[in-house]
Amino acid sequence: MSITRPRGFRAVGLPAGIKSTGAADLAVILNDGPRDTAAAVFTSNRVQAAPVLWSRQAIADGRARTVVLNSGGANACTGPEGFADSHRTAEHLAEQLEVSAQDVLVCSTGLIGERLPMEPLLAGITTAVTQLDAGPQADESASRAIMTTDSVPKTSEATTPSGVVVGGIAKGAGMLAPQLATMLVVLTTDADVDAATADAALRAATSTTFDRVDSDACMSTNDTVILLASGASGVTPSLEELTEAVRAVSADLARQLVADAEGASHDVHVVVSSASTEQSALAVAREIARSNLVKAAIFGNDPNWGRIVAAAGCVPEAVAPFSVDDLSVTVNGIQVCRGGGAHRDRSEVDMTPRETLIEVDLGAGDATGDIWTNDLTHDYVEENSAYSS
Amino acid sequence: MSITRPRGFRAVGLPAGIKSTGAADLAVILNDGPRDTAAAVFTSNRVQAAPVLWSRQAIADGRARTVVLNSGGANACTGPEGFADSHRTAEHLAEQLEVSAQDVLVCSTGLIGERLPMEPLLAGITTAVTQLDAGPQADESASRAIMTTDSVPKTSEATTPSGVVVGGIAKGAGMLAPQLATMLVVLTTDADVDAATADAALRAATSTTFDRVDSDACMSTNDTVILLASGASGVTPSLEELTEAVRAVSADLARQLVADAEGASHDVHVVVSSASTEQSALAVAREIARSNLVKAAIFGNDPNWGRIVAAAGCVPEAVAPFSVDDLSVTVNGIQVCRGGGAHRDRSEVDMTPRETLIEVDLGAGDATGDIWTNDLTHDYVEENSAYSS
Repeated sequence: MSITRPRGFRAVGLPAGIKSTGAADLAVILNDGPRDTAAAVFTSNRVQAAPVLWSRQAIADGRARTVVLNSGGANACTGPEGFADSHRTAEHLAEQLEVSAQDVLVCSTGLIGERLPMEPLLAGITTAVTQLDAGPQADESASRAIMTTDSVPKTSEATTPSGVVVGGIAKGAGMLAPQLATMLVVLTTDADVDAATADAALRAATSTTFDRVDSDACMSTNDTVILLASGASGVTPSLEELTEAVRAVSADLARQLVADAEGASHDVHVVVSSASTEQSALAVAREIARSNLVKAAIFGNDPNWGRIVAAAGCVPEAVAPFSVDDLSVTVNGIQVCRGGGAHRDRSEVDMTPRETLIEVDLGAGDATGDIWTNDLTHDYVEENSAYSS
Repeated sequence: MSITRPRGFRAVGLPAGIKSTGAADLAVILNDGPRDTAAAVFTSNRVQAAPVLWSRQAIADGRARTVVLNSGGANACTGPEGFADSHRTAEHLAEQLEVSAQDVLVCSTGLIGERLPMEPLLAGITTAVTQLDAGPQADESASRAIMTTDSVPKTSEATTPSGVVVGGIAKGAGMLAPQLATMLVVLTTDADVDAATADAALRAATSTTFDRVDSDACMSTNDTVILLASGASGVTPSLEELTEAVRAVSADLARQLVADAEGASHDVHVVVSSASTEQSALAVAREIARSNLVKAAIFGNDPNWGRIVAAAGCVPEAVAPFSVDDLSVTVNGIQVCRGGGAHRDRSEVDMTPRETLIEVDLGAGDATGDIWTNDLTHDYVEENSAYSS
């Protein structure tokens, strides 16, 4: 189970006819309270889809009762008409549930630049509210309805020491194709917390989980992560306790996103240690994770440390102070580069496992940072070059 | 002809046995004077190959008599021993030519992390100096000896109004695989100019030519562009006149590098206009040129403006102020996006030509900037994932 495991939540997913395939494409998640605490983080792309613009202002008061999500269309780059569509979606669901439209969050995913088919979408919402339910089937249908190029639904849950439950669903085939596979995540909890606590827990959790997945450096116009808190457990955990559970669910979902990345044959974990600061470590890890030459080499099962060192060398000294002569690189446990030069033979490295661990030691401090990415494969090129209409 | 078209230069290329294939792998270019003016620009990667470290200090006085270039090994990440190899290379050539080692520049290209085979290299230099010559055959042999994955040699020349000649050779299969295909360029001129003029002309020319080629955002450890001036014409052109000719030869060579990029099926010219500053325009153009999603779409002959707009949106507002609502995108002459939304149908765009022109209008000023790149193809993945040893 996932989003309705915490007390106080119902959900449903169904085919509304937005996708031409007839697959499920609409999900509604309802917080029955008693609290309606909510927090969210959104894409930092300056091009923001209409549902992101809507949800940003709706969440400003730290409250939300429900989330409606659709696949089959991103409603991005659709102008004032697209925003009116998101607004109308929220108003229609609000009427059905007898709540304020300002308590409705909207998420969309699919092609950029096309209007949503509003008639089937609104009709789908009318049907959906009659089918809201708690339990495994409700969670399953909701998690499936938000899939695009995902091959499997992503769900997770965790329980804190004081008995608070956190559940979550996610969609996104990695971040590999954000135009078609935007990352959407809804987390629920029955913790009895206020908006400031929910916001702090969500931001702390996403900064070390979803923010560290970087499959192809391409940022979506629609990325959204939402946390709803019902208060139905009657338990108010500490911020640390809540953060830990939200982080655990987020980390699990983030790992599932990487594992299902479009066309990938390796999940790549880049860990940079002995950096002067965590930001330095992350900058080096991200540069390595974004190097097409490193990613193509991993696809070819080549622990090509020269490309890893060259990528690290592209980070400006002001961002990450280190000396090339102190740099070491370990791939899947074999230290192939030491002191900036060749060390153990790279033929010793076993690159056949799905997971590739790249450890870079900068010899410049004691901070660490990590990024998850994927390799660059023929299937990635294929899936992202097929004509998208 | 190319590097020996300007008066005062001789050159040669030959197989020294550095490459196991027996192909040509060593070139020497000699400036017979009367002047020995020289300027150079190098990679800004913090990981600098031994020949780059050597040449940087050798060029510091604005003088050089000769350049020795090898393919078949980059001599990068080879530590103090690698630096000693570059030093020994320079000393050996200096002895043969009876010049100072400080007047010898060294360039290498090939695999990172391996020492060069010094015996055949030094023996090759001894042979090379006996074969130095001017003319089409000398130019041809030198331009071929520096090739790695290049499919054709790259040469160019230009003559200024006052009769000064500039010639050049280049290697690099785009910047697509800098580890194996570092960009090395040697330009020669018979202009009678001092080091400050040569340096100014070279920097002005490279900033709008080689610096604007960005095939895969990966920066080599060995990139080097050298300008040698013999003064043999007896003509001292103005800085503007010399710069124009150096720029023309550099632009021609840069365009040849893009056209020969490994595995590419499209040469992509990204032109960003109506920006607040040239730097803003270049930042947006570079972000688009580096987007794997944009590049994969072009491989699929898809003028996917949503991905172009999403890439532009990743540039921070402080770097490039513009409003998404003012943005337009024109692909091969068809304006597919206007005012941030869909405009003409993308099926109208003919993507079959090798050259793809992406024009982005930011509506935020009157500055322009452009970047050349390539598409992301199966062949790119294939060539860069094959085990490199």
